Amino acid sequence: MNTPATHHDLPAFEPRPVPAVMLAALRARFGDRCSSALAVREQHGRDESPFDVPPPEVVVFCESTEDVADVVTLADRHAVPVIAYGSGSSLEGHLLAVHGGVSIDVGRMRAIVALHADDLTVTVQAGVTRKQLNDEIRHSGLFFPIDPGADASLGGMTATRASGTNAVRYGSMRDNVLGLTVVTPQGRVIHSGTRARKSAAGYDLTRLMVGSEGTLGVITEITLRLYPQPEALSAATCTFASIDAAVRTTMQIIQMGVPIARCELLDANAVRAVNRHDRLELPEAPMLLMEFHGSAAGVQEQATTVQAVAAEFGGEHFQWATTPEQRSRLWTARHRAYLAGLQLKPGCRCVTTDACVPISRLAECINDSVAEVDASGLAYFVLGHVGDGNFHLCYLVDPAQPAERETAERLNRQLVARALRLGGTCTGEHGIGLHKQGFLLDETGAGAIDMMRSIKRALDPKNIMNPGKIFAL
Amino acid sequence: MNTPATHHDLPAFEPRPVPAVMLAALRARFGDRCSSALAVREQHGRDESPFDVPPPEVVVFCESTEDVADVVTLADRHAVPVIAYGSGSSLEGHLLAVHGGVSIDVGRMRAIVALHADDLTVTVQAGVTRKQLNDEIRHSGLFFPIDPGADASLGGMTATRASGTNAVRYGSMRDNVLGLTVVTPQGRVIHSGTRARKSAAGYDLTRLMVGSEGTLGVITEITLRLYPQPEALSAATCTFASIDAAVRTTMQIIQMGVPIARCELLDANAVRAVNRHDRLELPEAPMLLMEFHGSAAGVQEQATTVQAVAAEFGGEHFQWATTPEQRSRLWTARHRAYLAGLQLKPGCRCVTTDACVPISRLAECINDSVAEVDASGLAYFVLGHVGDGNFHLCYLVDPAQPAERETAERLNRQLVARALRLGGTCTGEHGIGLHKQGFLLDETGAGAIDMMRSIKRALDPKNIMNPGKIFAL
Repeated sequence: MNTPATHHDLPAFEPRPVPAVMLAALRARFGDRCSSALAVREQHGRDESPFDVPPPEVVVFCESTEDVADVVTLADRHAVPVIAYGSGSSLEGHLLAVHGGVSIDVGRMRAIVALHADDLTVTVQAGVTRKQLNDEIRHSGLFFPIDPGADASLGGMTATRASGTNAVRYGSMRDNVLGLTVVTPQGRVIHSGTRARKSAAGYDLTRLMVGSEGTLGVITEITLRLYPQPEALSAATCTFASIDAAVRTTMQIIQMGVPIARCELLDANAVRAVNRHDRLELPEAPMLLMEFHGSAAGVQEQATTVQAVAAEFGGEHFQWATTPEQRSRLWTARHRAYLAGLQLKPGCRCVTTDACVPISRLAECINDSVAEVDASGLAYFVLGHVGDGNFHLCYLVDPAQPAERETAERLNRQLVARALRLGGTCTGEHGIGLHKQGFLLDETGAGAIDMMRSIKRALDPKNIMNPGKIFAL
Repeated sequence: MNTPATHHDLPAFEPRPVPAVMLAALRARFGDRCSSALAVREQHGRDESPFDVPPPEVVVFCESTEDVADVVTLADRHAVPVIAYGSGSSLEGHLLAVHGGVSIDVGRMRAIVALHADDLTVTVQAGVTRKQLNDEIRHSGLFFPIDPGADASLGGMTATRASGTNAVRYGSMRDNVLGLTVVTPQGRVIHSGTRARKSAAGYDLTRLMVGSEGTLGVITEITLRLYPQPEALSAATCTFASIDAAVRTTMQIIQMGVPIARCELLDANAVRAVNRHDRLELPEAPMLLMEFHGSAAGVQEQATTVQAVAAEFGGEHFQWATTPEQRSRLWTARHRAYLAGLQLKPGCRCVTTDACVPISRLAECINDSVAEVDASGLAYFVLGHVGDGNFHLCYLVDPAQPAERETAERLNRQLVARALRLGGTCTGEHGIGLHKQGFLLDETGAGAIDMMRSIKRALDPKNIMNPGKIFAL
């Protein structure tokens, strides 16, 4: 395994200062929407990752594709880095200004550009968040399912190929972006895809941009697939004697083709954290939190099947959340589980894994990884989008104890090596960013990375688009 | 609109001969698996497109990724074009050797490399056809849904981003390829993707290759998603007074979110052709041919909903194919409908459109296009994967009457212009190849094509991978 970069050992990135003439041009063009105030820069220079690097030199608040194109055109002229900023919820250091440069804040680009309810599509500006989108389209009877937990911007979700709790049924951003408006590294505005559900027209630029982490262009508008709100919707929890039993239940549900909408694992530590944080009284044992979408009869049928499978594996306390309020309370708790988990060890930082493996290998991958962390004595909790084969082992480390951090990184490396051996990936949904570059090489091999680098060099020869992320050039 | 290339006006492609030293090296390496026989070359120099161009200079029958890599390494050294050949069923001239060069026949690469039934994945060599795959995995209780009609190779289906009758429920090749083995233009073997269901690990090279029509590399192995064979499966036909009524029924089914597995339109001409060809007695009126997959109760529920919607639009003669034999007879007829349609006008050639539009605009797009062809007096028939918004208007032209060909091309241009105005694409599933390069420009604009060209130049600087396809360089 290659050693991943950590906050201890990030390489020394060469600073690429913004020339005074460019700063002056930005100020002339954007007025007080261009800020060099330290507080603003610092706000745009951190995310949910554990890295500390200097903030960007200047932040520009864009309101339109044209605004973004104008910033990028200047950046291209002066070979200055640009980093798009949505809601700051990325986890792998994606928006950290490791080479300095300009933060392009698209958070004010919050317009629903066009809702085509009859086509089950919507076009939004990049700063629209997933919650805002669902609030604004609720009247149409449609919804957008991708839910990474945080109220992320759809631009950021696109750039990181996000997924989350509903992906087991509805797919990830890969599957639900139909088209994009992108500002290229030369400041040119291009469009990819159409509103048709499928197309065989040329290279799939849309999917090349999805997950490119801002390194190939700035996404300014996104056309998304929507889905009819299900006629019936029901959520349930079920408790198991072991993580293994919960995961084996999941594996069988997926192998049978049950169209379950959400299938989340919380280990006993995560349930304890959630109980404390959200004043719930869930049994403190490994738990599946599930949701079923469909017709009333279809939901009933799925639920019956799943209960039978769970019973085979000793599932107990099958509890239905029958009212919207109960359901919402459970999912709110799930979404806060990460923050709740951090409070298991006050003052800690968290090293979060993101492996995703073929479903038949999930029990092995989780069991062996949990056994290792148990043996290490480190505090931890487990959250998993187990229906996808994706789980997060969250190692809690005391920043004052470097040995804990080292243990966590070692366990993370062992876990990723295991996931790759089992045919999986080092990252199901968080992306590569700064932290997983060594893992990406282990996963794809040098040939695939060289192909990625060739594409990057061809499209962004000055390396101004979020430089330093995904791979070194 | 830009004028598309037709068989009349293909540009003059510069021939790029295979040097004697390379021919000798191929013969030394491959023996009688390397053929320059005219009959073999001609068989590899045509597909289902209406173009006549000279055949490739030499054909190499590869049996492994290493074989392919060895051919490409030689081709790279001598800057000679290579064109991968699967089953020869592509429709847009994809495998025509417009610049000469080497045809790499992967048709003998027919191994199922690894079936992971518990993970719902399979890895196959590129020459495995979709029917072979389903025959070989039937015992596992799983199936691969993508069905473009022809018994195409999975390598070809991947390279053209194929879809077909099941895409309305299961998606296209875009959605069902998890990973690839690819020989790069330099002869290097790379792997993209994993067997995990999702990943956020770097650029989506898998989806860049899917639909790249052999212009970025030769696909030698493909890892695919499989699905459990549905517990219940039922097919039905329903007849309508007009194409409009059939299409509006489809639109409402999709907008309601009914998880219909197949939803095909045949116009009265297509039904007449199928009746003659397959000795059926279907009412000769616009018809929907549908299939439902699910649990017994789920299929019943879908069917009840669809029957109610069809009745609203005057649907009649709702007929169930209750036995596997009846069902198979109907789908065989549907798959032969293109060949049956050609026999409506003996000796004709066919100009086939492939527009795909947002579902709410489908009736408008089909109605106006049918009115135009009716007014022109040209013979035609219509087949549609209408659940996707995709349909084929097949214009039947007499090769001895150039005016008919010109009329067909004019109608095709008008139809594509209409589809683009309505937010759609010029090709839902057949690809760009030689015929639709002007349409691609109309659809995406010069900026997106320039980005595609940059990628092509970066990955294939000698332009040896299926040169002349998708766009001119």
